[in-house]
Amino acid sequence: MTINSRKDNHIAVCLNKNVQSESTNGFEKYRLVHNALPETNFEDIKTETVFLNQKIAAPILISSITGGTESGNRINRSLLEAANTLNIPFAMGSMRILLEEDSHGIYDNPRKYAPSIPVLANVGAVQFNYGFSRDQCLRAIELIEANALILHLNPLQEVLQSSKNTNFSGLLKKIDYLCSNFPVPIIVKEVGWGISDVVAKNLIDAGVQIIDVAGAGGTSWAKVEAEISGTETAEQLASPFFSWGIPTAQCIEQIHARFPNISLIASGGITHGVDIWKALLLGAKMIGIAGPLLAPANEGPQAVVSFLEILVQQLRIAKFLSQTIVKEKDYD
Amino acid sequence: MTINSRKDNHIAVCLNKNVQSESTNGFEKYRLVHNALPETNFEDIKTETVFLNQKIAAPILISSITGGTESGNRINRSLLEAANTLNIPFAMGSMRILLEEDSHGIYDNPRKYAPSIPVLANVGAVQFNYGFSRDQCLRAIELIEANALILHLNPLQEVLQSSKNTNFSGLLKKIDYLCSNFPVPIIVKEVGWGISDVVAKNLIDAGVQIIDVAGAGGTSWAKVEAEISGTETAEQLASPFFSWGIPTAQCIEQIHARFPNISLIASGGITHGVDIWKALLLGAKMIGIAGPLLAPANEGPQAVVSFLEILVQQLRIAKFLSQTIVKEKDYD
Amino acid sequence: MTINSRKDNHIAVCLNKNVQSESTNGFEKYRLVHNALPETNFEDIKTETVFLNQKIAAPILISSITGGTESGNRINRSLLEAANTLNIPFAMGSMRILLEEDSHGIYDNPRKYAPSIPVLANVGAVQFNYGFSRDQCLRAIELIEANALILHLNPLQEVLQSSKNTNFSGLLKKIDYLCSNFPVPIIVKEVGWGISDVVAKNLIDAGVQIIDVAGAGGTSWAKVEAEISGTETAEQLASPFFSWGIPTAQCIEQIHARFPNISLIASGGITHGVDIWKALLLGAKMIGIAGPLLAPANEGPQAVVSFLEILVQQLRIAKFLSQTIVKEKDYD
Amino acid sequence: MTINSRKDNHIAVCLNKNVQSESTNGFEKYRLVHNALPETNFEDIKTETVFLNQKIAAPILISSITGGTESGNRINRSLLEAANTLNIPFAMGSMRILLEEDSHGIYDNPRKYAPSIPVLANVGAVQFNYGFSRDQCLRAIELIEANALILHLNPLQEVLQSSKNTNFSGLLKKIDYLCSNFPVPIIVKEVGWGISDVVAKNLIDAGVQIIDVAGAGGTSWAKVEAEISGTETAEQLASPFFSWGIPTAQCIEQIHARFPNISLIASGGITHGVDIWKALLLGAKMIGIAGPLLAPANEGPQAVVSFLEILVQQLRIAKFLSQTIVKEKDYD
Ligand SMILES: Cc1cc2nc3c(=O)[nH]c(=O)nc-3n(C[C@H](O)[C@H](O)[C@H](O)COP(=O)(O)O)c2cc1C
Ligand SMILES: Cc1cc2nc3c(=O)[nH]c(=O)nc-3n(C[C@H](O)[C@H](O)[C@H](O)COP(=O)(O)O)c2cc1C
Ligand SMILES: Cc1cc2nc3c(=O)[nH]c(=O)nc-3n(C[C@H](O)[C@H](O)[C@H](O)COP(=O)(O)O)c2cc1C
Ligand SMILES: Cc1cc2nc3c(=O)[nH]c(=O)nc-3n(C[C@H](O)[C@H](O)[C@H](O)COP(=O)(O)O)c2cc1C
Repeated sequence: MTINSRKDNHIAVCLNKNVQSESTNGFEKYRLVHNALPETNFEDIKTETVFLNQKIAAPILISSITGGTESGNRINRSLLEAANTLNIPFAMGSMRILLEEDSHGIYDNPRKYAPSIPVLANVGAVQFNYGFSRDQCLRAIELIEANALILHLNPLQEVLQSSKNTNFSGLLKKIDYLCSNFPVPIIVKEVGWGISDVVAKNLIDAGVQIIDVAGAGGTSWAKVEAEISGTETAEQLASPFFSWGIPTAQCIEQIHARFPNISLIASGGITHGVDIWKALLLGAKMIGIAGPLLAPANEGPQAVVSFLEILVQQLRIAKFLSQTIVKEKDYD
Repeated sequence: MTINSRKDNHIAVCLNKNVQSESTNGFEKYRLVHNALPETNFEDIKTETVFLNQKIAAPILISSITGGTESGNRINRSLLEAANTLNIPFAMGSMRILLEEDSHGIYDNPRKYAPSIPVLANVGAVQFNYGFSRDQCLRAIELIEANALILHLNPLQEVLQSSKNTNFSGLLKKIDYLCSNFPVPIIVKEVGWGISDVVAKNLIDAGVQIIDVAGAGGTSWAKVEAEISGTETAEQLASPFFSWGIPTAQCIEQIHARFPNISLIASGGITHGVDIWKALLLGAKMIGIAGPLLAPANEGPQAVVSFLEILVQQLRIAKFLSQTIVKEKDYD
Repeated sequence: MTINSRKDNHIAVCLNKNVQSESTNGFEKYRLVHNALPETNFEDIKTETVFLNQKIAAPILISSITGGTESGNRINRSLLEAANTLNIPFAMGSMRILLEEDSHGIYDNPRKYAPSIPVLANVGAVQFNYGFSRDQCLRAIELIEANALILHLNPLQEVLQSSKNTNFSGLLKKIDYLCSNFPVPIIVKEVGWGISDVVAKNLIDAGVQIIDVAGAGGTSWAKVEAEISGTETAEQLASPFFSWGIPTAQCIEQIHARFPNISLIASGGITHGVDIWKALLLGAKMIGIAGPLLAPANEGPQAVVSFLEILVQQLRIAKFLSQTIVKEKDYD
Repeated sequence: MTINSRKDNHIAVCLNKNVQSESTNGFEKYRLVHNALPETNFEDIKTETVFLNQKIAAPILISSITGGTESGNRINRSLLEAANTLNIPFAMGSMRILLEEDSHGIYDNPRKYAPSIPVLANVGAVQFNYGFSRDQCLRAIELIEANALILHLNPLQEVLQSSKNTNFSGLLKKIDYLCSNFPVPIIVKEVGWGISDVVAKNLIDAGVQIIDVAGAGGTSWAKVEAEISGTETAEQLASPFFSWGIPTAQCIEQIHARFPNISLIASGGITHGVDIWKALLLGAKMIGIAGPLLAPANEGPQAVVSFLEILVQQLRIAKFLSQTIVKEKDYD
């Protein structure tokens, strides 16, 4: 299976099958204490923030899904146009195929649809063990005028999928090397199983400036890969991993406790604005969202805009109504 | 939509739809320790108390529902006549429409049905940011010979409903101003999401004499407003707030711990006399009840009387059988 | 309704309706630690014990159900014959009717069926406030050659049932008076809502020698009384009390912790031998069982014997396999 | 019923009925912390280990099921051939029948199918109280060239099954005697209810070198025996024991905490490689698996190989992805 058709498969499976993690996202363990007397005008509750030195409308990142080469490209376009309309950042899916193959024919430059927002390049960190170089990273940045480069860590996905790139040795050193004097910030993310505080420490020591935890509780790639392979054996192999990973809220709380100054993106299983506000109060600077955007993106840019506007409105309401987060178990 | 037809809608939705909060009222976290040997004559278990300097038959307040202007008025009358029959206090719903519009034609003076019980006036505190004045509060009192004035805080309801009065800035100062030399006590309440200890502190500092927590666990106005607007978007926007708020029992326990001298009314999700007794043992002086009265009120005053008599009897039984409340988690 | 027909009603309801408490019996909070190497011959695991100075085959009491005057009497006889066959003690149900009315015609002396086992007389303690005297207690003992007198405390049942004897004032003093120089030991029990450590203290101070906790988790008399009255109002009144009471295991643990020397009977919701062994390890000397015996008793004495033999065998197995009980929450 | 036909019955019941314990295996109380950056090549994740001084492919033992005399023998052969193919150890089921009866006609020497792997002999420790001798243990070892001797402790099974050998007195001394100068290591195991730390201490003091906890959470022999006897009485007797026992994970954690140097085998309810890795991180050296192998073994050796290969692969993945185990309750 080529990377390209695998990508199409991924999207189809995520749209049509239950690929929801059997772990929660962890935010249910926290409660926002209601403030009946906000002493604010709701109109003054803003969501604007600065990300990658650029003003954006809300601390919401469209997380990596499409790499710009997918056949059809409807989803890619919807997401980009919506991001541009709303002025929120957009992260590319893995650009490996773009950089490795002669794919100019199918390449769809995101800047065509999203000239002004922050756009983030994306490659799998493990590719550095499979011939991928610093120069290709630079080319990825250049190609799309990227404002940052995301390296994704996906060891569980790699071991479950058919074309396995599973040599994760020595990556930290290579990430460290990449971080020195790279023209844009380096972000490291998972793909749905979370970053522990220990991994965060290593990444920070290596010079990573932003961590996107991409924790458990949303899209489960163990489920996606089991669905894609379709065999009973693959399903059986993957099934104990359907609840694998560190819930998103725990990642944020634990990393923020140890490294209060590192920029954190909370992603993995975020579906509404109340959890966004919880994530921000727990220490995240931004949140990311991928799987829940697929269905609206398949409809068109307006559906994505509407969906995200609801999230922004929920975030504003939650922010209006609460400034304090407590752990459920401490609260009772 | 005019205030009036909105009010009718509210009542219809509360009567016919599931508007129950997805939070519990919190009383399930407490246990009444059974006393097998009460050493009392059950006949001597009384529920009489004093509220607003008046003797009443039980510490039960009919919470704010109707404002005296509703078309039909059946519910209004049922509740008033029942309150008068039982000698328990009655709180008006928001009187804003009465005070703002020329509504003398439809105005139904509560004193016609309830000459002798404590009747409480009610206005939304946020109205002070929308032209409402101290004088109108005085007129509200005068109009119904009110024994107290309730100010309700409903920030979440306001942001979810169509005609939003969502400027909640500077209200504390205005409440403070109102409290000085006002002829009757000022009560502040929520409408189903609770008062935190921090909000309680601010209200007490401003001179508020009675706090009605109106916590989570009963009628959920997020559900009511979603039902009323009827659109999928409104439902999606409101849904993460279906479990919002501080459960009633937690409000009472936390405020009472910090401010043992403030008069507390426990309301929000109270449906039987065992929870009434728990509320009183946790520090409340009175309890309030709104949503569960709608169905009997729709039937007629006798149904309300019967319903409330059961609550009073349950309260007497619980009081007869237990004088000690413990936290479930400490008990085991 | 006469006492007699009420009694028949009680039995019919307990046989045919769901009268199970909505509380658990509390034993699920304790775990018996398995001993894989018991170092014993299972044949040597005995259940014999001494109760009321008499050797009995197992620490199992047939709890108070029938008072010897019931029409039909099938259940009464089954239980008595089974108790006699197995050599376990039998407690009469309330003997008030026997003692107050001219009921010699229907009186069925238990000693006819159970000449040699301990038989316990039973009256409601509250009857001391309704004309019942020490002399009648003595006559009760004499009538059936009772080995002990049980006083039951049932304040919740009394307030819920139609013919209410609900004056529970001053009972402690009367119990104290009865205890001095009474020819047989006085046992005090509840009827399914438990004895707290505070009540236990008062009873012990009054001279009571044995306490039968009769805690929550088995037959719920709130449900029985609601079923019997059959009206919606009675059901509504009683329903918050369907989970009322102190679970049996908690009663035992708490009373035993404070009063290690008092003889305790664990009853209320005991249905198998594993819970019997838990009860004994928690400090009980005996267990009692009522509701679960009705169905076999309705079949005949052999069904009761078979049922109880299973319990005894389960008790022997549990005793063989575990000598240590721990709290679940401490264990993990 | 002869031992032989009982054995067949056991297998049929385990294959066709729900014999799953109502206790969990306890591993759900522990979480493997995900490591997004393993810094290893997945290809380098090995499962080889040494067991009984022999190199084996994975720390997985095929637990005792068949004794080599079963009619049909299909399951026996499948398991042996699979173990040999995979190079993992195989434990015989109880060899008592082989050693007591003239069963040479039906005896199927495991070494025919599994010449090179570790094979473990198995007898019930309780047999030492029923005429079984040290010499017979030596003959068991010799007969199959066993690398170790497993003694199983099954007091609950014995009391529930029809032909009861239930004298468990004085076994520790006999185990102690057997352990001195026995030619192969002695392993003691349960059969699905676990070994407590106290029992472990006694066994270690007696000279036992390896303990297989065989805890609760998998095959429940209380259910098996109830199914086999088929009567309602047997079902009623056994049912409170359907959740009996110490969960496997708790056994491992508690014994390892007190005796960090004893070799532990984790078995009972292990069905996938994630729990295998948890068991190893909690202190086990090996894991054992019985019930879940029956269905594949009934199909044939290849099905067993495939099933176990999945477990090994899951173990490799879990080991690749996590090196840290935490208690859920400490983690939040
Ligand atoms: C269809 C699809 C494709 C994805 N492709 C990528 C990718 O190429 N690179 C990447 O870093 N993450 C990729 N992800 C992972 C997401 O960025 C995100 O981390 C993960 O889905 C968890 O977020 P969610 O619960 O909001 O979906 C993809 C997710 C989906 C649903
Ligand atoms: C139909 C309806 C109308 C209400 N109108 C008012 C109102 O006008 N003013 C107010 O302070 N609260 C109003 N409330 C809120 C109640 O007073 C109460 O705080 C809330 O419903 C929670 O109590 P409950 O769980 O017993 O319903 C209304 C409630 C209902 C059900
Ligand atoms: C039909 C029936 C009649 C009872 N009558 C009496 C009684 O007369 N006196 C008494 O002390 N308890 C009486 N009880 C209560 C029982 O003795 C016992 O305390 C209670 O049912 C809880 O035990 P259980 O869960 O095993 O049923 C009766 C119970 C039943 C089911
Ligand atoms: C059909 C069957 C037969 C068994 N026979 C034996 C036996 O002869 N000796 C023994 O020590 N354990 C025997 N066991 C118990 C297993 O070895 C194991 O300890 C128990 O089943 C728990 O592991 P599981 O949950 O993986 O099944 C048997 C188990 C099964 C399912």
